[in-house]
Amino acid sequence: MTRTCLAVILAAGDSTRMKSSMSKVLHPIAGLPMIGHVMRAVASAGISDVALVLGRDADAVAKAAEIDGVAVCTFLQTERLGTGHAVLTAREALSAGFDDVLVTYGDAPLVTEEPLAAARAEIAKGADVAVIGFHTERPTGYGRLLVQNGELVAIREEKDATEEERQVTWCNSGIMAIDGHKALELLGRIGNDNAKGEYYLTDLVEIVRAAGGRAVAVDAPEAEMAGCNNRAELAVLERLWQERRRHEIMLAGVTMIAPETVFLAHDTTIGQDAVIEPNVVFGPGVTVDAGAVIHAFSHLEGAHVSAGATVGPFARLRPGANLAAKAKVGNFCEVKKAEIGEGAKVNHLTYIGDAVVGAHANIGAGTITCNYDGVNKHLTQIGAGAFIGSNSALVAPVAIGEGAYVGSGSVVTEDVPANALALARARQEIKPDRAKAIRERALALKAAAKANK
Amino acid sequence: MTRTCLAVILAAGDSTRMKSSMSKVLHPIAGLPMIGHVMRAVASAGISDVALVLGRDADAVAKAAEIDGVAVCTFLQTERLGTGHAVLTAREALSAGFDDVLVTYGDAPLVTEEPLAAARAEIAKGADVAVIGFHTERPTGYGRLLVQNGELVAIREEKDATEEERQVTWCNSGIMAIDGHKALELLGRIGNDNAKGEYYLTDLVEIVRAAGGRAVAVDAPEAEMAGCNNRAELAVLERLWQERRRHEIMLAGVTMIAPETVFLAHDTTIGQDAVIEPNVVFGPGVTVDAGAVIHAFSHLEGAHVSAGATVGPFARLRPGANLAAKAKVGNFCEVKKAEIGEGAKVNHLTYIGDAVVGAHANIGAGTITCNYDGVNKHLTQIGAGAFIGSNSALVAPVAIGEGAYVGSGSVVTEDVPANALALARARQEIKPDRAKAIRERALALKAAAKANK
Amino acid sequence: MTRTCLAVILAAGDSTRMKSSMSKVLHPIAGLPMIGHVMRAVASAGISDVALVLGRDADAVAKAAEIDGVAVCTFLQTERLGTGHAVLTAREALSAGFDDVLVTYGDAPLVTEEPLAAARAEIAKGADVAVIGFHTERPTGYGRLLVQNGELVAIREEKDATEEERQVTWCNSGIMAIDGHKALELLGRIGNDNAKGEYYLTDLVEIVRAAGGRAVAVDAPEAEMAGCNNRAELAVLERLWQERRRHEIMLAGVTMIAPETVFLAHDTTIGQDAVIEPNVVFGPGVTVDAGAVIHAFSHLEGAHVSAGATVGPFARLRPGANLAAKAKVGNFCEVKKAEIGEGAKVNHLTYIGDAVVGAHANIGAGTITCNYDGVNKHLTQIGAGAFIGSNSALVAPVAIGEGAYVGSGSVVTEDVPANALALARARQEIKPDRAKAIRERALALKAAAKANK
Repeated sequence: MTRTCLAVILAAGDSTRMKSSMSKVLHPIAGLPMIGHVMRAVASAGISDVALVLGRDADAVAKAAEIDGVAVCTFLQTERLGTGHAVLTAREALSAGFDDVLVTYGDAPLVTEEPLAAARAEIAKGADVAVIGFHTERPTGYGRLLVQNGELVAIREEKDATEEERQVTWCNSGIMAIDGHKALELLGRIGNDNAKGEYYLTDLVEIVRAAGGRAVAVDAPEAEMAGCNNRAELAVLERLWQERRRHEIMLAGVTMIAPETVFLAHDTTIGQDAVIEPNVVFGPGVTVDAGAVIHAFSHLEGAHVSAGATVGPFARLRPGANLAAKAKVGNFCEVKKAEIGEGAKVNHLTYIGDAVVGAHANIGAGTITCNYDGVNKHLTQIGAGAFIGSNSALVAPVAIGEGAYVGSGSVVTEDVPANALALARARQEIKPDRAKAIRERALALKAAAKANK
Repeated sequence: MTRTCLAVILAAGDSTRMKSSMSKVLHPIAGLPMIGHVMRAVASAGISDVALVLGRDADAVAKAAEIDGVAVCTFLQTERLGTGHAVLTAREALSAGFDDVLVTYGDAPLVTEEPLAAARAEIAKGADVAVIGFHTERPTGYGRLLVQNGELVAIREEKDATEEERQVTWCNSGIMAIDGHKALELLGRIGNDNAKGEYYLTDLVEIVRAAGGRAVAVDAPEAEMAGCNNRAELAVLERLWQERRRHEIMLAGVTMIAPETVFLAHDTTIGQDAVIEPNVVFGPGVTVDAGAVIHAFSHLEGAHVSAGATVGPFARLRPGANLAAKAKVGNFCEVKKAEIGEGAKVNHLTYIGDAVVGAHANIGAGTITCNYDGVNKHLTQIGAGAFIGSNSALVAPVAIGEGAYVGSGSVVTEDVPANALALARARQEIKPDRAKAIRERALALKAAAKANK
Repeated sequence: MTRTCLAVILAAGDSTRMKSSMSKVLHPIAGLPMIGHVMRAVASAGISDVALVLGRDADAVAKAAEIDGVAVCTFLQTERLGTGHAVLTAREALSAGFDDVLVTYGDAPLVTEEPLAAARAEIAKGADVAVIGFHTERPTGYGRLLVQNGELVAIREEKDATEEERQVTWCNSGIMAIDGHKALELLGRIGNDNAKGEYYLTDLVEIVRAAGGRAVAVDAPEAEMAGCNNRAELAVLERLWQERRRHEIMLAGVTMIAPETVFLAHDTTIGQDAVIEPNVVFGPGVTVDAGAVIHAFSHLEGAHVSAGATVGPFARLRPGANLAAKAKVGNFCEVKKAEIGEGAKVNHLTYIGDAVVGAHANIGAGTITCNYDGVNKHLTQIGAGAFIGSNSALVAPVAIGEGAYVGSGSVVTEDVPANALALARARQEIKPDRAKAIRERALALKAAAKANK
């Protein structure tokens, strides 16, 4: 039978060191607020009830924490009296009698379901509390996990540790599982008889043991336990997240020439044998299919790149860009809310917005879809096999028929029938020797300007 | 007298962990397939005969292995019975009586000629087998080189090693030289009486010693010995290659502000006092001469940048771009198959393709050479000192004479004589107060659309 | 009472390993010549007199060393006889009777005021010489600081060190403070009775102690002490500088998603809650105000970005670009010497140079200000709320009135009154079925060309 679990997520921190106009847990990692990452880990671990302890920006944090399949109750923490006190803010939820209680943190977004499950498994096996620890080469500042005969004897804070205890490199992450049926009672016993007068969750270990109960520690990778107190640490979280995800994607058969220069979003998916060149940034909502090539210096967001399509270098796909198989979007091109048909080419210095480009159409260099009239957006339709001459402006709403040809430099304001040629440009005039005259006049002007100074 | 040498290159691996639609050894490092790197190392080491042991994608690998000055025989490995067996696939070549046999690997592309030469030198001095080892801080998983009195006693696999042997940090790279006149006989003695029933090349050490021969180990840098089993390791190989080459180029007098963001190709050459800013990607075939500046966010391939020329930021030079001295190609410009004359400027948002731009010509912002009619490419010629007004389209084939002037926004379809002015644009009309009317209509449209929803 | 201090900066090195056409100390770090960084540290430490010991490119180095509030005397070092001799080149300045003399180096640009002040503080407390040291994990090659009872006993060069002394990881940076009233006399006692026949400044320690004086060492972070002998080390200096500065900026409340991809200039200032996405390069002279967003792949130099404005991705701001609050400059846009008014939008493929853009104006995709006639630059004025249709060319000098509307694809050569509509484009013609004919002709041409080969 499945055990029930309540995750208590502490997300009330003031985050003064973030020097931020918003709550720390709203800062995004890979485009998703930190609190969203924690919620995903909780949901992945099969936990469907969350007590969210909020402070600053409570409404925004609650909103960012919404996720399918998880019921969230929010609790407002008005005083800051330590982690033990913070968890008890959720007293009402705790009293509902879950089998397990899991305490985790809104600013520790890299945790995955594995250590959460491991801690819960210890509760299922009879422990009263199971603390998640991590091994580190730089333990200074962390509480050390003191273990004897497989039991967690104490979490020793740095300042209280003996010289020998300081050598311990297994540290407290703060995340822990508690027997849900005892949690309220155990938490209630935490006192504040200490220098700061705060209620420390870590006291649970000694409380449990004093009562003859069992405390244990389980291990997790250090990289999953990283927290965030300032923007430098925020950048470290981002880096750790990116490294983990890039590695997964590479192992799945995607080539990244320089993975450290590829920035993924929380939901980026990339198919096998796709190649991602250096310096590619993915915003949210991108799917790259098998065998597509994303060249260097590309920026994609809300876009779909089909198999065998190529993007970049120096391309930007914005939300709603949908490239069919073997389509090409090349350098200094922007595509927004547009279908680019199979094998169609948008290769140079082009803006395609609010458009449908047919299969195998060729969009010449410098083409602009004039989709905006200052108030409304309009659609441009380009038929299959059409050829848009370079430096043309297509003034939407407008439709270019299949196989039609737009002469270079045209401003197309009316529909072009299939297979027709549209020209909308002036006839060329030559003024012999006029360049020389222009140059001489300009030089005289320059000389005069100089003389006037 | 020069000793003859046969390099046996094992390149038959299935590479399932690469999750790739092509053979592992075809994956490029710095734009050159891995097998090509190995061939270069072999060629640099003065070895002119190669036995290439192939499996998957045999034809493509053989093709990628072609290199001047090296005769390559290919052998198809149909069964996978271990490295010892794989080498014997090349029995025919081995029986030709080379002085040295060198066994190396298609997926170890970072090896240089030095360790190969060092191993061969040991054979020349009388060793029967000379194994290339590397020192590492993470020896786990590698076979350890056990050395006594200057001789290699055994290559101990991790699983067979004693606790003490596991402390050894000198590891087997797999690459080795063998006395060519004894190689066939020695290889023939390798048995498969082991857990996997495979023939291990490493057994040679004990076979040689049992026969009273001499086995030795020579050292190589760990970075040269890295192999590749998945795409994450492929990325590591790329990084190691890039680090090595960037370092060489910097020591030769090139400034790289952030070398870790500069990606070189296998054949990139850069002259002294050139400056490469952050985020520059070199495809194959680029030569940058002394004192040129490549600004940030530039992408070059098959291009030549002469002394004192500047490129970027945000410039793309494609194959056939040839910048003369002091030429400038600036932001959001693409140059393809074009000569850019001395001191000529292509500074902003321009596409120059299939063109010859004369010295000191000035190409205005937004200029497009319309080189493609949907089927054929045509040439644009721009004379020395010509001035192309901004946002012009030059419809090729077309020639702009020396000192000529093209008015901004023109679509030039006919040749322009030297020093002439060409205009091909419409006369401006003003419709007073019409903007207000347009705006009001658009706003009404928007309101109506909203009401309809 | 404030003590007086002379900083002697040695900047005469030949820098042959730099393989450079200019003096090593002129190579920039974060856009400022190394010597400039040293001068800033000296000035920050409250030192107002500098003796600059010069060799190669003396004039250029002296110029690059100019800084407000510091009087600089230059001395030409013509012979290279060691650091002790080099300092004495400034004999005239040394004889002026400063309280402290501080010896530092033009190629050690990362030193900050703290260790300089710490060394001077030791002189103030009675030491004759105070050497700045740094702890390192890789001491090989450095002189070791041998300390007993709080006094510096000797600086032991690697080659003269015992095995035990080599274990010392506190190393000599070369930077030191000397009692200014004794400096000349102490320096004069340095001999050249050694293998190279050079005068070593490090001998001062033993000279001081032999005379019954007091030598001490003070500690500094290793990263501040890094020097530069080749371009690879130059890149390391740049990296260390960038890491330090990025960290400061992040701690001050700026988000950098991938700080290692953001390149700051020596004078970049960024306000709280600004977001700097990956791959942003700052040239000198940039100020980004609070809450602005600089998207990926942006390049800024000499620009000001006001609160709430957004830049990029793929944007370039050149000197004189001034974005008012909430202005937007988007992809493939270049802005130079231009005011972009509050809330104005320059979103796509646009060049705005020498211009004033009014508040809430909308500049369509592909717009070009034609500011240059080949000789002179001219101004474009765009009124508040104006709408410039896509792919337009504005031929300066020209003024577009408030609320005016320029039709897409227009070439505007004359002023447009407020609220007027300007059109300057040709009427569209349709040639039915002509595209088919063009295609057939082109294909025939291609076939003919092929046949001719």
